[in-house]
Amino acid sequence: MGKKHKIVFQPSGRQGEIEEGASVLAAAQEFGVDIVNLCGKQTNCGKCKIKLSTGTHAGFGMTVTDECLTPWVDDESKHINEAERADDIRLSCQARILSDVVVYVPEESRGVSQIVRKSASKRKISINPAVKKYYVEMEGPTIEEPLGDFERVVRALDQKYQLGKDLTIDYRTLMDVPNVVREADWKVTVTIWWEKEVQKIEVGDTTDNQLGLAIDVGTTSVAGYLCDLKNGKIRAVASLMNPQTLYGEDIMSRITYHMTTEGGLGRMYKAIIDEGINRIVENVCADAECKPEDILEIVLVANTAMHHIILNLNVEPLGLSPFPPVIHRHIDIKPRELGIKMNPGGNIHILPNEAGFVGADNMGVLIAEEPYNQDLNLLLIDIGTNAELVLGTKGKLVSASCPTGPAFEGAQIKFGIRATPGAIEHVKIDPKTLEPQYQVIGIDDWLPYQGDEADAPDYIKPKGICGSAIIDVMAELFRSGIMLKSGFFNMDLDTPRLSMNGDEPEYVLCWADETSIGKDIVVTVGDVRAIQMAKGALYAACKFLMKQHNIKEVDKVILAGAFGSYIDKKQALIIGLFPDIDLDKVYAIGNAAGDGARIALLNKDKRWEAEEIAPTVEYLELSTLDEFISEFANAMCFPHIEDEFPHLREFMAERLDAPDMAPILFDADREDDDDD
Amino acid sequence: MGKKHKIVFQPSGRQGEIEEGASVLAAAQEFGVDIVNLCGKQTNCGKCKIKLSTGTHAGFGMTVTDECLTPWVDDESKHINEAERADDIRLSCQARILSDVVVYVPEESRGVSQIVRKSASKRKISINPAVKKYYVEMEGPTIEEPLGDFERVVRALDQKYQLGKDLTIDYRTLMDVPNVVREADWKVTVTIWWEKEVQKIEVGDTTDNQLGLAIDVGTTSVAGYLCDLKNGKIRAVASLMNPQTLYGEDIMSRITYHMTTEGGLGRMYKAIIDEGINRIVENVCADAECKPEDILEIVLVANTAMHHIILNLNVEPLGLSPFPPVIHRHIDIKPRELGIKMNPGGNIHILPNEAGFVGADNMGVLIAEEPYNQDLNLLLIDIGTNAELVLGTKGKLVSASCPTGPAFEGAQIKFGIRATPGAIEHVKIDPKTLEPQYQVIGIDDWLPYQGDEADAPDYIKPKGICGSAIIDVMAELFRSGIMLKSGFFNMDLDTPRLSMNGDEPEYVLCWADETSIGKDIVVTVGDVRAIQMAKGALYAACKFLMKQHNIKEVDKVILAGAFGSYIDKKQALIIGLFPDIDLDKVYAIGNAAGDGARIALLNKDKRWEAEEIAPTVEYLELSTLDEFISEFANAMCFPHIEDEFPHLREFMAERLDAPDMAPILFDADREDDDDD
Repeated sequence: MGKKHKIVFQPSGRQGEIEEGASVLAAAQEFGVDIVNLCGKQTNCGKCKIKLSTGTHAGFGMTVTDECLTPWVDDESKHINEAERADDIRLSCQARILSDVVVYVPEESRGVSQIVRKSASKRKISINPAVKKYYVEMEGPTIEEPLGDFERVVRALDQKYQLGKDLTIDYRTLMDVPNVVREADWKVTVTIWWEKEVQKIEVGDTTDNQLGLAIDVGTTSVAGYLCDLKNGKIRAVASLMNPQTLYGEDIMSRITYHMTTEGGLGRMYKAIIDEGINRIVENVCADAECKPEDILEIVLVANTAMHHIILNLNVEPLGLSPFPPVIHRHIDIKPRELGIKMNPGGNIHILPNEAGFVGADNMGVLIAEEPYNQDLNLLLIDIGTNAELVLGTKGKLVSASCPTGPAFEGAQIKFGIRATPGAIEHVKIDPKTLEPQYQVIGIDDWLPYQGDEADAPDYIKPKGICGSAIIDVMAELFRSGIMLKSGFFNMDLDTPRLSMNGDEPEYVLCWADETSIGKDIVVTVGDVRAIQMAKGALYAACKFLMKQHNIKEVDKVILAGAFGSYIDKKQALIIGLFPDIDLDKVYAIGNAAGDGARIALLNKDKRWEAEEIAPTVEYLELSTLDEFISEFANAMCFPHIEDEFPHLREFMAERLDAPDMAPILFDADREDDDDD
Repeated sequence: MGKKHKIVFQPSGRQGEIEEGASVLAAAQEFGVDIVNLCGKQTNCGKCKIKLSTGTHAGFGMTVTDECLTPWVDDESKHINEAERADDIRLSCQARILSDVVVYVPEESRGVSQIVRKSASKRKISINPAVKKYYVEMEGPTIEEPLGDFERVVRALDQKYQLGKDLTIDYRTLMDVPNVVREADWKVTVTIWWEKEVQKIEVGDTTDNQLGLAIDVGTTSVAGYLCDLKNGKIRAVASLMNPQTLYGEDIMSRITYHMTTEGGLGRMYKAIIDEGINRIVENVCADAECKPEDILEIVLVANTAMHHIILNLNVEPLGLSPFPPVIHRHIDIKPRELGIKMNPGGNIHILPNEAGFVGADNMGVLIAEEPYNQDLNLLLIDIGTNAELVLGTKGKLVSASCPTGPAFEGAQIKFGIRATPGAIEHVKIDPKTLEPQYQVIGIDDWLPYQGDEADAPDYIKPKGICGSAIIDVMAELFRSGIMLKSGFFNMDLDTPRLSMNGDEPEYVLCWADETSIGKDIVVTVGDVRAIQMAKGALYAACKFLMKQHNIKEVDKVILAGAFGSYIDKKQALIIGLFPDIDLDKVYAIGNAAGDGARIALLNKDKRWEAEEIAPTVEYLELSTLDEFISEFANAMCFPHIEDEFPHLREFMAERLDAPDMAPILFDADREDDDDD
């Protein structure tokens, strides 16, 4: 056996160790990363391009140079041009691994697209967009009345729609005016923003075509909803991985990248604009058969760090206590300032930031759910790579954020993958036999198939575990007693599913012959640890918010975020993702941040609501609270049912008598919770 | 004698015929065009660069290609790089003339700078600029109060200056905020526009340094006035030739260039921004020892065509009846939209356009002179390459424009030159001897020196005639009877000064040995014709405005424009530049358009005044009036004293009995004037 090297594939985050000299493509196949490869490694198809991610990757403790891969091979020139080569693009079938390395798999090289998990929820929205189209006809100029083009249009608009004479006009739009009015023989459609600024002028009557785009930029994924501004209908949805994952998996590692790498901010900015937002624009346009210029306005939400990077603002202060943002208030900005494809005269509206990392995305959640208009105590949890939480009711809202890492999205999990075809999305384990069953995305049946093997349909075989299944498997391992409260496995149990890999215990979820990757899909104690970190942080954050409100119970838990919509809320409660509550009072509302963007796109009055509410939300900075660390450490364990999670009793009958169910850790601290 | 070819030098407009094979430099010397030439034609200095102006020059009836000059010589590569070569730059000492040709002499190759004739007038202006600086100190963020940077600054501003909390911020300025506040330890100076938008943030207290720039872009020249916004003082003045003269001497020929040349508009736009406005910025900054970023705001005026080209707006409709502008209203635009050097977060404010070619520059004249607040009938004449006129009083203002061409500025005049050292600026002719005397710029004495030749100081010798002297010489030729009312010369007079050059009569103003160019400086009947065209148009325009007001006399004539300030108003009346009036009621006010820009820069309230007044100014389109042609033709003659110009009687004693003084031409038409 030769020397082994670590390879990390971005943006999926899949990683592993492989022998020196293996091709990047071979490593991808080994670790379940889909790279298109039509020709079977013969440099004929040129589809398997990857980008060597040179530079320092503090998160992975490595510095990547072009010497991490074998030198350029002439055959690569057939498919990779000079500019691409300068940009460190290689054919993954030719480039072999010489050292620890990080590579990026471009969208076009990825075998399968991620399934859109940020689908839009059905919400009732009153339609009152900030941009509207107006059709007018008028007479052209005469010697008697040589009024200028723009003023002529303004007069016609005022006569027909009483818009007044004080309209202004975007500069780029002004450039179109003389040409469009003449081509149109003075019959034009004018797009106006807030009844103030003319942002587009078109030949003839185009009032049927009024589109806007709501975009939610998450740390890990980006989603866009193309909406008809006349009736609110969603015309197309697109989502993709945030291309910045190349520069760090979570917020702090991207901020670190900016702080440690010359030009790092600019690179991340360019990535999210060119390969994130503009790609979303292209995709929704292709789907809805329209042009980017047809998008009259974009409303964008993001957490504070993404917000700053999209605007190319220095994120360093945001990475240092007390984590102040550069700006809270909403921003209206022209696409040319950022290089975004849309109506060139239009605006991008960005909702206001709250505080710390609780940004415009959470503002989106708030205007979607309106806790400030309710009498109940709502706990809103938006789970992503960073979690943002708000607890409150009319008159008092407190927010907090905590890093949950990408584990919930399948990264940092040995066989974790994104939600793509072939991903296991749900798991159950029989507490008696300790045997598992699982559902693969797109297949309703539970596998392995329980009927006559001859009747078994030709199912897609699993290749990994996605976020919702990770929650399931943890909960089921715990419920069935395979996993102890501490997160270790009970190796005394008599099942072939449990074994040691070196010194790490693992549980086999699928035997090699059931999978498409030809090896066992397992869950390791390391995987459990990653989930424990994430859920512990989340739970501790919830507890601190409750302490801030001086309440012991919340009235309602609302799970937002793509992840929140796909998990089984019972399983989430079993692992202790949020404080104990009657499950009837737990709601998964999908991508509420994206919904908020959509609401603000379709109803301009909600923007003022956001601007008014944002400064009233109190912010609790957890990372600087000493008590947070112990609360967090405590919460890493799986739940105490008796004292903390009475609502779990009914699901956990078999588990209640297990010896590890008594409280064990940090209980003195835990008592403190009730003192305030 | 070999074949002869025509050569035109831009931007001066000097032209002549020269033998094939002469170098461009030799031609320049022949026609009095100053090109720097330190090495004496040995390709050593590289200072004598010119640019071959390829393309169609409809105005000169020629198409210029690179075959109009001899081929590239290796030696030229020593001084001309690849990019310059591709841009048709040549060394004028090496490139020889093979065909009719137009060349452009870049600013840096010009031997002497034009004297700033657009100096600023002294005016009382109340100081209330749109941009103001505010110094604030504050505490940085803490865990207890992690307020965002921008909101922290806004709060401090509100506490100290009661500016409210609704301030917005320019995007580029926002990018500076996190860095500046920290470098400054939260002691910063903030520049705010209209108490609305933050446009600059600086470390420490910089309130002493508050600069703004007023710019007047004329068809032929561009002038800038750097002002201290705190007290209105002028810190620096700069002026230069409008680099667009390369593409046409007057407005219509530039519009034609746009209409007939692919990319023509973009080229003119780039020229005025890069070589016009930005050069002015550099020059005033060098003079005042400041940086372009110190210029907080620019207020710009221009005629409508220049206005459109500066904004890269289609000027084609403006060139076709009924000549509508693209927009009337004022524009506030960021420098990055146009590529202008100044505070990147600041604005360029452009005053509103009136109508036709009567643009923001005339608006500048109006807010400077305020005819709308006066009870007298004012006739405001702004003379440039295009003349803009306004006649009126409180409650009724009528404007018109007419092309006067560049003759008043020395172009189209055989020995006409711009106002540079060595230019004759005033002339008188003794009606008895018919001998002339002249003043050269910078010399108080009249030449030729009348005293003992041995005592004669070492004067700069003349090399040409500038605008003010052209008016003088016409008036003096007429007053002395050398020139007839029709513009022809009375060749029967007995003086060596009059002779025929081919079939063109000419009057010798300076004998060759008195000049620095070694040949006679003469005034030709062709020169007279050029002035007749210009002054005829202007006079006819005045008459039509008076007709529009139904008045026979105006109460006051105000001459604006650089030219208007340097001419002798008596001489101007003698040639009939404006309708008869008591000379005590004629005022020259200098560059009032530039003054208006300065006033709007220093007092923001005047911008609203402009916005209110602009739409109330009636516009009289002369070019489409049939009667204008005959009025114009009539007005080309020199004045009828008896019936039209009674105020001339006292100056014209000798002339009154001349046989040509009786009305001769188009009198039937002229009688019509009184009918309406």
